[in-house]
Amino acid sequence: MAYFPAPLENLIDCFAALPGIGKKSAQRLAFHVLSLPEGRAEAFAAAIMEAKSSVHTCPVCQNLTDGERCAICEDDRRDSTLICVVAEPRDVLSFERAREFGGVYHVLHGVMSPMNRIGPDDLKISELVERIAGGQVREVIMATNPDTEGDTTAMYIWRLLKPFGVKVTRLAYGVPVGANLEYADEATLARALEGRREM
Amino acid sequence: MAYFPAPLENLIDCFAALPGIGKKSAQRLAFHVLSLPEGRAEAFAAAIMEAKSSVHTCPVCQNLTDGERCAICEDDRRDSTLICVVAEPRDVLSFERAREFGGVYHVLHGVMSPMNRIGPDDLKISELVERIAGGQVREVIMATNPDTEGDTTAMYIWRLLKPFGVKVTRLAYGVPVGANLEYADEATLARALEGRREM
Repeated sequence: MAYFPAPLENLIDCFAALPGIGKKSAQRLAFHVLSLPEGRAEAFAAAIMEAKSSVHTCPVCQNLTDGERCAICEDDRRDSTLICVVAEPRDVLSFERAREFGGVYHVLHGVMSPMNRIGPDDLKISELVERIAGGQVREVIMATNPDTEGDTTAMYIWRLLKPFGVKVTRLAYGVPVGANLEYADEATLARALEGRREM
Repeated sequence: MAYFPAPLENLIDCFAALPGIGKKSAQRLAFHVLSLPEGRAEAFAAAIMEAKSSVHTCPVCQNLTDGERCAICEDDRRDSTLICVVAEPRDVLSFERAREFGGVYHVLHGVMSPMNRIGPDDLKISELVERIAGGQVREVIMATNPDTEGDTTAMYIWRLLKPFGVKVTRLAYGVPVGANLEYADEATLARALEGRREM
């Protein structure tokens, strides 16, 4: 027998189905929603429906947008001959925060991962190849995470793009800015040495 | 400039407004909702609306219910002359799980807390007094948490109920079942000694 009313149990289950939310947290969140003023709870429900219905991928770069194309692809000041390939929409945000990159993006929506049965066809790779085939792109920067899956994905795409003769680069490996060398791992230090540059 | 589309930012803000959810978690949750199949996201939004509109407090015990009165107050087999006073609806669930209590409940929806500016008028205390004034109740068990705020609230209600001549009891303090005495705090041990009973 459930002791909470059914609609409340249902809401708790919805929250508990979200990643990283356990049963106790789900209860706390559901109680919080019940305690919200009427308008705020409605706004929450509406936000879910609105985001779900209006947010889709940009037909050019596959980033999330609610317009026809995303704000970056629409921006004439961005260099569309330079494409930064990232795994997730939030990675675009990280690069934009760094304010260093003037090109455009391509969002793969994941990385290849045999463990999770994610192959090239589950990612937006054919869309990238199509952009390169257009012939207007001079450089593709592979900016997937510097881990096994990110490296594998970058390598796979690099091989695919080879026939087009486009320059493909990978983000530099090295010690992070502000890091303490004492705590840097061996692999990172080895890559930092390998990639050393003249001062 | 927000780099996520506005409806997505809006959904992230909704999640971030929930207790214990930070900005990063809110992003992860919002992305998860976007990735849900259409029906599931709709069901989530509907669950919020449904819980908010159909769940209300039982006019007798103030517990949450979607019926006219709650299932426990409706149950003829429960002893309505014995009232267990708890702070929150989830405390009712804890007692019901213990399967020891055959009486009914009264949910205060909080405890008195000068720090958070919660006074007696913010709680369902007058509703409790009204139930006692009916004259049918023989015992009130104060089952607020064994902390300062819970104790203060229990004491306040005890004083209010005195004129009615009803028996008011407090949950026993002591060492929790299965606990290791080595790690029990002094206050708990002192209360456990004070409340010792003949074997």
